[in-house]
Amino acid sequence: MAGNSIGKEFVVTTFGESHGSVVGVIVDGCPAGLPLVEADFQEELDRRIPAEKKIVSARIEKDVAKIFSGVFNGLTTGAPITLMVENKDVKSGDYEDIKDLPRPGQADYPARIRYGGFNDYRGGGRFSGRITVALIMAGTIAKKLLGRYNVDVLAYTLAIGDIKSEKHFSSAEIRKNRDAAATRCPDLICADRMEQAIMEAKKEGDSLGGIVECVAVNMPVGIGEPLFDTLDGDLAKALFAVPAVKGVEFGVGFAAANLRGSENNDAYKSSNGKVTTLTENAGGILGGLSSGMPILIRVAIKPTPSIAKEQKTVNVCTLQNTALSVKGRHDPCIVPKAVPAIEAAVAITLVDHMIRSGYMPQVLKEH
Amino acid sequence: MAGNSIGKEFVVTTFGESHGSVVGVIVDGCPAGLPLVEADFQEELDRRIPAEKKIVSARIEKDVAKIFSGVFNGLTTGAPITLMVENKDVKSGDYEDIKDLPRPGQADYPARIRYGGFNDYRGGGRFSGRITVALIMAGTIAKKLLGRYNVDVLAYTLAIGDIKSEKHFSSAEIRKNRDAAATRCPDLICADRMEQAIMEAKKEGDSLGGIVECVAVNMPVGIGEPLFDTLDGDLAKALFAVPAVKGVEFGVGFAAANLRGSENNDAYKSSNGKVTTLTENAGGILGGLSSGMPILIRVAIKPTPSIAKEQKTVNVCTLQNTALSVKGRHDPCIVPKAVPAIEAAVAITLVDHMIRSGYMPQVLKEH
Amino acid sequence: MAGNSIGKEFVVTTFGESHGSVVGVIVDGCPAGLPLVEADFQEELDRRIPAEKKIVSARIEKDVAKIFSGVFNGLTTGAPITLMVENKDVKSGDYEDIKDLPRPGQADYPARIRYGGFNDYRGGGRFSGRITVALIMAGTIAKKLLGRYNVDVLAYTLAIGDIKSEKHFSSAEIRKNRDAAATRCPDLICADRMEQAIMEAKKEGDSLGGIVECVAVNMPVGIGEPLFDTLDGDLAKALFAVPAVKGVEFGVGFAAANLRGSENNDAYKSSNGKVTTLTENAGGILGGLSSGMPILIRVAIKPTPSIAKEQKTVNVCTLQNTALSVKGRHDPCIVPKAVPAIEAAVAITLVDHMIRSGYMPQVLKEH
Amino acid sequence: MAGNSIGKEFVVTTFGESHGSVVGVIVDGCPAGLPLVEADFQEELDRRIPAEKKIVSARIEKDVAKIFSGVFNGLTTGAPITLMVENKDVKSGDYEDIKDLPRPGQADYPARIRYGGFNDYRGGGRFSGRITVALIMAGTIAKKLLGRYNVDVLAYTLAIGDIKSEKHFSSAEIRKNRDAAATRCPDLICADRMEQAIMEAKKEGDSLGGIVECVAVNMPVGIGEPLFDTLDGDLAKALFAVPAVKGVEFGVGFAAANLRGSENNDAYKSSNGKVTTLTENAGGILGGLSSGMPILIRVAIKPTPSIAKEQKTVNVCTLQNTALSVKGRHDPCIVPKAVPAIEAAVAITLVDHMIRSGYMPQVLKEH
Repeated sequence: MAGNSIGKEFVVTTFGESHGSVVGVIVDGCPAGLPLVEADFQEELDRRIPAEKKIVSARIEKDVAKIFSGVFNGLTTGAPITLMVENKDVKSGDYEDIKDLPRPGQADYPARIRYGGFNDYRGGGRFSGRITVALIMAGTIAKKLLGRYNVDVLAYTLAIGDIKSEKHFSSAEIRKNRDAAATRCPDLICADRMEQAIMEAKKEGDSLGGIVECVAVNMPVGIGEPLFDTLDGDLAKALFAVPAVKGVEFGVGFAAANLRGSENNDAYKSSNGKVTTLTENAGGILGGLSSGMPILIRVAIKPTPSIAKEQKTVNVCTLQNTALSVKGRHDPCIVPKAVPAIEAAVAITLVDHMIRSGYMPQVLKEH
Repeated sequence: MAGNSIGKEFVVTTFGESHGSVVGVIVDGCPAGLPLVEADFQEELDRRIPAEKKIVSARIEKDVAKIFSGVFNGLTTGAPITLMVENKDVKSGDYEDIKDLPRPGQADYPARIRYGGFNDYRGGGRFSGRITVALIMAGTIAKKLLGRYNVDVLAYTLAIGDIKSEKHFSSAEIRKNRDAAATRCPDLICADRMEQAIMEAKKEGDSLGGIVECVAVNMPVGIGEPLFDTLDGDLAKALFAVPAVKGVEFGVGFAAANLRGSENNDAYKSSNGKVTTLTENAGGILGGLSSGMPILIRVAIKPTPSIAKEQKTVNVCTLQNTALSVKGRHDPCIVPKAVPAIEAAVAITLVDHMIRSGYMPQVLKEH
Repeated sequence: MAGNSIGKEFVVTTFGESHGSVVGVIVDGCPAGLPLVEADFQEELDRRIPAEKKIVSARIEKDVAKIFSGVFNGLTTGAPITLMVENKDVKSGDYEDIKDLPRPGQADYPARIRYGGFNDYRGGGRFSGRITVALIMAGTIAKKLLGRYNVDVLAYTLAIGDIKSEKHFSSAEIRKNRDAAATRCPDLICADRMEQAIMEAKKEGDSLGGIVECVAVNMPVGIGEPLFDTLDGDLAKALFAVPAVKGVEFGVGFAAANLRGSENNDAYKSSNGKVTTLTENAGGILGGLSSGMPILIRVAIKPTPSIAKEQKTVNVCTLQNTALSVKGRHDPCIVPKAVPAIEAAVAITLVDHMIRSGYMPQVLKEH
Repeated sequence: MAGNSIGKEFVVTTFGESHGSVVGVIVDGCPAGLPLVEADFQEELDRRIPAEKKIVSARIEKDVAKIFSGVFNGLTTGAPITLMVENKDVKSGDYEDIKDLPRPGQADYPARIRYGGFNDYRGGGRFSGRITVALIMAGTIAKKLLGRYNVDVLAYTLAIGDIKSEKHFSSAEIRKNRDAAATRCPDLICADRMEQAIMEAKKEGDSLGGIVECVAVNMPVGIGEPLFDTLDGDLAKALFAVPAVKGVEFGVGFAAANLRGSENNDAYKSSNGKVTTLTENAGGILGGLSSGMPILIRVAIKPTPSIAKEQKTVNVCTLQNTALSVKGRHDPCIVPKAVPAIEAAVAITLVDHMIRSGYMPQVLKEH
């Protein structure tokens, strides 16, 4: 069952449950000498919860990250960094009555079988979206490290339901607009329509899915460890740790299936002593290695499985067919909350590979 | 650079280069007591090359797998199993003149940077589609192990270029039709059209991509090691080791983004003491664990990057802009050859997780 | 720098520093369904500090373990278990003045180089004996798991300085006497003499080393994963994580070098349908696999490097030769405190291998 | 059962059986750009078999290493390097009649249980000393890499039976004398007596054990990944993969138990801008990190378990007590053959840690 760590040289281990006392993370292998204070995490954690709260769950934790190890005099030491936030706004009673009734689309049923019924089922336990808080904390450290190399990772909402933004924005615009919009879509006209669509679905006791896009610019060339520890493979693996992810594609992705080689290949050009490509169909990865061009990833997010609408299920003790309407407090659309988790998963993977390749040193600067 | 192994308890390590002496694989962690002879690999290897050869590269290796270790008296021993095929039909001269001209869409450029120019660039070296022979050999063992538990893994071509099969077939029909069609598409009417489309692209010095679908039935419930070693995450990672893969999705995949929760959730029903679902949108995986329903994966394959058409590139020594037309012998569409590699990658991952979860024992039967 | 985890399926990750806020551990991969409460850890933690306190450091922490995750309704869930104790009795001022003067025999000098001076040097930081508290907490869980299979792990002091116990005791006697003696030596006459020797060394501003022996009985036959993940190799690796360990041997160990094959080989006998051996020279391990006979390990512990006596050292900034007398509060002999850490390291390794081999299931009993 | 790889960034995987067709190894993660030809391995392989052959087994393989992948134009490429030697001088009939009679001191009995009787028992199968050929081939690469950093690893026989060399020699003398003496002991007077002792034991159908010492000089300071991936712990683990090893100690090792802190601590001194120590009791490792001083390791080797003298055993099918006299061809003392294997295990571990720490780059020189 030991599957709660990811990474080989920048190893992220998460722990905690939705309705337990804490959610936390250990980052082992962080280079020594990185300035790190608890306030660094606040901005990232706050971004999980939009200021405009009507489209999110009524459970709103004011998460405050606390550092328990690995930092000395405001700098990382090379020792494992432990971070935790407390769970405070917990209403576990909501879950007791559906203990034996697996919620469709949730991990309830396979988890019950896997853990012999011993798993903490309250609020989804380990499978709750709340666990992404751990990813986001580790991602904060990863993004600070990437910043030293000008690598910028940026995730945002591309589509919610059938509303899809087609406009192109600069990184600065994306960041500014994204953080202003509750839906995290930088196309503010779409963002408004997405919000309305979410409110409508919510009213009907239903939920919406969407697509998140993530771009990483300024990656050095040649990062990745083929054949198996490819950069795209490891990014995909990390992304599937974000709840509700059902698909991952790079560059033009599935659309590449419908292009000819002459259309899909990114031709090289040289200018100012730099090799770049005329198009960016590959999404910045070739043969499992970064090409130096922007890494472009799209992630499919399914609609929140927890809905008020009545659904068919089975009592796993009696094997009787029955129905349930999920109570508890749920997001009618988890796409906005998935955005920072996806950004974190990407950043973590990039750092792990930059350390593995020897590109990022293990001591940032002699003391 | 140590990224050539995958799996935790069923560990597959590949080695060899396109134009080196061999391509091979070690499987460490195969349960003891599995009957295994060299002939087991032949059928799988032969399936890489369609009988109808006009749509494939002129390089046709009659691959013959040889067992070097780990088998005694026709049974696996629990020791590492080493398998190799020789490379015979090699024309390395084709590559010498483009040594400094990275082919668009290939790994040439980032590989040159990553390995400081020391990599074997002939025929793509480690990045060649030929390396999938190693995956296919390991997959043969994995499928034999899965067969003991009635788990059946089946991959086939769903789309090539803009021709997409929409018909539904039984597993038996898929298998029969697929092996008959050079394109590996079980919808034989589509298969014909796909073949024509490939020939047309070839005539124009161009290439086509496509989509491969893979189904695994009869998986037990609860296989996977969340949060990070999820079944979908590990499947995706393994699939990105197959050259030319640009996207992976499970169940309805990216289409889930456009469904409501009430449409996307697979409601449970109980019949004959078994819990199943009314729909199969989740693709057989919930929360990173198998749900017991068929696992459904779709994989996007980009068009072969090696095309005869002239393409822009850069001489990486002189940084001069130039052009090249890829000579060598190439498949105008690699989708058919990707089919057995994808089947293998899926089977390998399922076995690794079945051993990890304790579901598959390490000794198959006392001697 | 990511070296703070051990184990493959029962993964123990430690964190925390001697003078930081906490020392903690995560156990990932603990089978689900094990009863576990905070009180379980108390007895083990208390055993670190002998009731008779004159032979130990003046820093005496009343360690209280707190569970932060992975336990629900008093049972393990299969999710990672997080445990921490607070550091309270910390006097960091003691270390500031020797920041640039590495203490002979401590990790100060290589750690400063490795971590570029960013490491937390207070009280040895990560290299302090205090970190064994994390091992002991993980070991408590491991020993509870082993108890289910009647595997009993028992460590005790064999020698301190030149006083060596030669008597043989039963497991029950060892356990009873060991816990009564401050030196953890079950031979109470030796224990008294050891205590006197320690007090004498302390008076002289000096320190003593010793040998700890550890026995594990009732191990099943065939546990271990040769060629590299041998049971003895993994035990040795875990034991070198206990500070001050300088040697590890199994069975007759180094004395085997001086025996003939006919003397050293343990001949087999069969009685009551069980295969055992007439002698126990191999220490219960053959070819990296458990033989079913008692596992016997001896561990060499060097004398505490921190001594009041003046020692030569170098100011690593100025490279001037100088001298220091280690202040702070130190144990004149760390052998007694090493005993529970060694027991823990052994138990953790045995559990990891019992899970890996499939002998210990991942769910202890269906709920 | 997947335990046949060691290392994290310089990953060595061995395969093959004593009486199978080959013994081989894959080295994954070797830096690119290292000159490597098949002749490099010959000297090392030849050293396994002393020119003076009377003290070794009658099975004498003229091992010739063949490179199958990972080398291009005489330089490593960064891809996995595969090496094999053929098994030619095999007499498997010798083993058939003792299939059910485990040889005392060998892995026969636990291996039979572990692998359910499916293991290749001929000549010990995977547990044969012959498997060290794989280690030696990987060690050849490791030593070439270390040579670039002037790190020199040197193993030699210290004791056989009760004959122990007490003289001190320079590295050059050790190397010269060692390779001249069949027993690999650089003290040539002792070497002669050892040879006589071995011949005597052989005449009596018996065998001798001994102690091998290994020194590594010029290691940089601070290599190792505590707390668990310590340099000493990983060295010990690697050494226990050499058959017949029963104990490992560093520096003064077990003798440290009997020293006072003031005697055992290595005081620092500064001269010519370099920090060294006045004594070398620590064996070059402090807190799991290299200290920059010579690494000194001693390894206990048990007497060859295969002896002609009759020994008691059990028929594991009938559980009848019986006796056997091991036929086959065996070394009366395996210490000399253990010497190159120990040297290899040490070199492999040092390289893995030098890459992990970032000290050794992954591309040796731009092409």
